[in-house]
Amino acid sequence: MKKSAELVLAVDLGGTKLRSAVVSKYGKIAAVSNLKTEAEKGPEYIIDRLVESLGTLIAENQFSNKDISGICIAVAGPVDVKRGIVTSSPHLPGWHNVPLKKIIAERTGIRTFVDNDVNAAAIGEYVFGAAKGVTDFVYIAVGTGLGGGIIINGQLYKGADGAAGEIGHTIIKENGPKCSCGNCGCLEALCAGTAIEREIRKKLKKISATEVARVYGKAANEITAKDVGKAANEGDLIACEVISNAAYYLGIGLANVINVFNPQMIVLGGGVIKIGDIYVSPAIEVARETAFELPASTVKIVRSKLGDDTGILGAAALIS
Amino acid sequence: MKKSAELVLAVDLGGTKLRSAVVSKYGKIAAVSNLKTEAEKGPEYIIDRLVESLGTLIAENQFSNKDISGICIAVAGPVDVKRGIVTSSPHLPGWHNVPLKKIIAERTGIRTFVDNDVNAAAIGEYVFGAAKGVTDFVYIAVGTGLGGGIIINGQLYKGADGAAGEIGHTIIKENGPKCSCGNCGCLEALCAGTAIEREIRKKLKKISATEVARVYGKAANEITAKDVGKAANEGDLIACEVISNAAYYLGIGLANVINVFNPQMIVLGGGVIKIGDIYVSPAIEVARETAFELPASTVKIVRSKLGDDTGILGAAALIS
Repeated sequence: MKKSAELVLAVDLGGTKLRSAVVSKYGKIAAVSNLKTEAEKGPEYIIDRLVESLGTLIAENQFSNKDISGICIAVAGPVDVKRGIVTSSPHLPGWHNVPLKKIIAERTGIRTFVDNDVNAAAIGEYVFGAAKGVTDFVYIAVGTGLGGGIIINGQLYKGADGAAGEIGHTIIKENGPKCSCGNCGCLEALCAGTAIEREIRKKLKKISATEVARVYGKAANEITAKDVGKAANEGDLIACEVISNAAYYLGIGLANVINVFNPQMIVLGGGVIKIGDIYVSPAIEVARETAFELPASTVKIVRSKLGDDTGILGAAALIS
Repeated sequence: MKKSAELVLAVDLGGTKLRSAVVSKYGKIAAVSNLKTEAEKGPEYIIDRLVESLGTLIAENQFSNKDISGICIAVAGPVDVKRGIVTSSPHLPGWHNVPLKKIIAERTGIRTFVDNDVNAAAIGEYVFGAAKGVTDFVYIAVGTGLGGGIIINGQLYKGADGAAGEIGHTIIKENGPKCSCGNCGCLEALCAGTAIEREIRKKLKKISATEVARVYGKAANEITAKDVGKAANEGDLIACEVISNAAYYLGIGLANVINVFNPQMIVLGGGVIKIGDIYVSPAIEVARETAFELPASTVKIVRSKLGDDTGILGAAALIS
């Protein structure tokens, strides 16, 4: 790859992984650094390691700062984009109004941008992924929670304060289960990772610990949404029921998105989508049956093409 | 007013009223024709009367066709805007794929546009009304049903097929009351006119006909949402309860809109909003309490400024 200012440093700062990469403007990843975030150690520690890893990435690959046109950091949590401040994050304890943009720019001497990871992923899908060339679509990330990124006219729609896209926190079931946001019956609380984990624990209460251990190889309170997906894919009926219920609610959420946005496409990303057809197919079916006929028949509903690189390619796309 | 091609013929084709007007590009209404739609007589009859009334408007005010830069018809129902076809309408029986644009253009010799009335109203509020100069807002019309018009970057956001904005048909209460669209628990089925009428009839079943007649001056099955609003404003407790419940659901719907769009403004229009503070204030309160703090604190929630002229001014705004 040519050394030029066409390269960016893209960072995916998640609750468990801290990935950094040198990325070309065409989305080619030239070099990667994979670290554990060690979120519990707080912002100062993480920022030190981030700066160090960026320095190493540049040095080891014999780049200089001049080759890099900018740094973009996609953060798992709400970001005040204009000021480059991480306002808070459920996944990053201790991060309250951290002026990440200013800190990184000062310590590296490279212009820096900070944005939310779901926004970054949406732009990543538009520039490099499943929605290449699709000007109006909605990206939905189903992981522990559920986030949305709205692309209108080829631009990320951020709303008045950069807070748009909180599709996970639309209420779809009055008096439904408590959500991380404090409300009840949000889409996120019905279909995302925490919902799947809550529901499987509820159901496994009636099942003997031995039986639970036989299926899952662990205790009920250690089971993750990924484990439930695996068990469902292997035919465990209780797991199938939990996944099927979650898929139903995801389908209702997709139908609401279709009726409001009449999008050309919906891109589904995030860890829970990796559970696969057993989760995604019934959700799409419910969405197409529930939404109005015309928008339901024209919308393409596809999965992310960027996989584990969504974060860094999204970050790269934000400044490319 | 100067006779010039700066005038348009704007038509508001609703289920009960057929209003036409000569409107200047500044939103000044130069002449109006008010007719009853007589919807039951079907499209041919209505189109004949519409063409006749347009002719009369032009002739009586001593305009000629040359003074008119275009005709725009706002229709209460789904419209295929590109082709100018009224695909169907719950308020206009017999209208199925009526090529209204083509018919009116051929019969008048004036270029014609056709759009949905809620879309027209949203643009009307942007050009002439409460959202003048506000580039990102959501217009919500609460009448018999609930419709939405989304303005992004000063443009009506129509989605891939012109079907965007169906906020009334987002599900907010799983297994809620049956909606006109066939689904259950749509926002419309919980807070709009038909919901208020359904709920008051349910409650009045337990009340004697004499008592109902004392409060409403009519039988329970003849009571309209407007009547319930009036009774509530006069202090009738049952009416207050029905309005209060509907307002709660409208508030949930507004909260969902705020979390998804983070709009600068929400404009509330439509007949049910005229019930007034007793309906609108608690809805706004619920919305601000339920949505995320930042977007809930910045969004302005205001009422339409165009009143009964929303339809014709909206239509005028679409071609001005």
